[in-house]
Amino acid sequence: MLSKVGRYSFTVEPFHCDFQHQLFLGHLGNHLLNAADYHSDERGYGISYLNKQQRTWVLSRFAMELAEMPKAYDKIVVETWVDKVMRYFTSRNFAITSEQGKVYGYGRSIWAMIDTQTRQPVDIMQVGKGIIMDYVEDQKQCPIAAPLRVKTNPLALPKHSFRAQYSDVDINGHVNSVKYIDHILDLWDTEWYSQHRVERFDIAYIAESHCGDQLSLSLAEEGDETYSVGITKPSGDAQKNIEVCKSSIKFMKI
Amino acid sequence: MLSKVGRYSFTVEPFHCDFQHQLFLGHLGNHLLNAADYHSDERGYGISYLNKQQRTWVLSRFAMELAEMPKAYDKIVVETWVDKVMRYFTSRNFAITSEQGKVYGYGRSIWAMIDTQTRQPVDIMQVGKGIIMDYVEDQKQCPIAAPLRVKTNPLALPKHSFRAQYSDVDINGHVNSVKYIDHILDLWDTEWYSQHRVERFDIAYIAESHCGDQLSLSLAEEGDETYSVGITKPSGDAQKNIEVCKSSIKFMKI
Repeated sequence: MLSKVGRYSFTVEPFHCDFQHQLFLGHLGNHLLNAADYHSDERGYGISYLNKQQRTWVLSRFAMELAEMPKAYDKIVVETWVDKVMRYFTSRNFAITSEQGKVYGYGRSIWAMIDTQTRQPVDIMQVGKGIIMDYVEDQKQCPIAAPLRVKTNPLALPKHSFRAQYSDVDINGHVNSVKYIDHILDLWDTEWYSQHRVERFDIAYIAESHCGDQLSLSLAEEGDETYSVGITKPSGDAQKNIEVCKSSIKFMKI
Repeated sequence: MLSKVGRYSFTVEPFHCDFQHQLFLGHLGNHLLNAADYHSDERGYGISYLNKQQRTWVLSRFAMELAEMPKAYDKIVVETWVDKVMRYFTSRNFAITSEQGKVYGYGRSIWAMIDTQTRQPVDIMQVGKGIIMDYVEDQKQCPIAAPLRVKTNPLALPKHSFRAQYSDVDINGHVNSVKYIDHILDLWDTEWYSQHRVERFDIAYIAESHCGDQLSLSLAEEGDETYSVGITKPSGDAQKNIEVCKSSIKFMKI
């Protein structure tokens, strides 16, 4: 039987780094989600197995907290494990370290399993005779807070609006989870990032969006170098928008 | 001595694939440019060596031609080699295959070496006692046409305009070469890509752009499923724009 914790290595590619030579947070997020994909696939409950049974994983909440951001050419290890399984949700953690064990940071995520036709939650225990329970690792530490329940700030101001494009849409046919992270962090410019880096990023995914959807970003300052950003898309009703995702970004001065 | 041809493997990541499960061309381009970076670095004339001598490589022209587009989870090999060195330019080729040798496609590129202070071209032979000449491979085939000298079409119509953002800017401090490819291919939507794929993509880089620059894309149909796209930015003179890059995209029906 495979170990409960999966371990995946990668080298930080130079062109995945910002002007400070630090890995873009979106690319780091992508590495974590890839590790989740490989880990679940190797253990018999990945998306390719689930899709055959009209099931899939949906990322519900995601948090990353960084003590240090990996730099170009660094060799990184992502460890990932499922620490809790509820009926409709699982909790999956991540540790991001160097090959020598230096900690860059941690991640936490909450995933739902849904029926690909009805889009309704399904009982995770019913899949593969509850095989996921064979790999629950609840002893390994993940010393950061659980993904926040990000609140919508009624004082948030519209900051940017754009149409989701071809490159935003991934293999699932809707806007890619980490693309939202890129768009949110693009609300600040290189001048800001020359003096700040993200210490912690939380995002809650609420509704899917698709190519051509007009996405609007609203920003509120929450104090203590923390900001909240909500992304909405229009609904049929002109008075009402649909919430797509909500995020909280805590910066630190560098 | 290392071989003249460098060989680099990667797995096509699922979240680097479009809704057709095909690798985004921008991500493929990124893999080729990474291979170029690793190949030159390992052979003693990479950017980190050059930067210490106030020199760097600048990508001038780039072409990719695909018989087939790699799909999610495919294991890909990128081979790269320098086939020609002129005083101020080198020509570097790429072959993209499966591990078993199936050909996906080829790439060609032209690079200039410049002084990082004066931004002027420098004599490539003066660097590392002309070490680059030790690795010229002029026998290996790269059966696609050289990168096109893309022409500006005076009938091109403005299609899209946006401000370059934080995530567009890479480690070099200016807009990343493959980000232009993403922005250009975003002129078409998922409906178009459900019936077309890129057969050949050519791009010529003319001027750098930076975070905050307003970039404007103009499109012209050239016939035979081929389009040209130019990207410009404003100059001090309101009547005149600066050409940033020019591209030619040949689609094929799928």
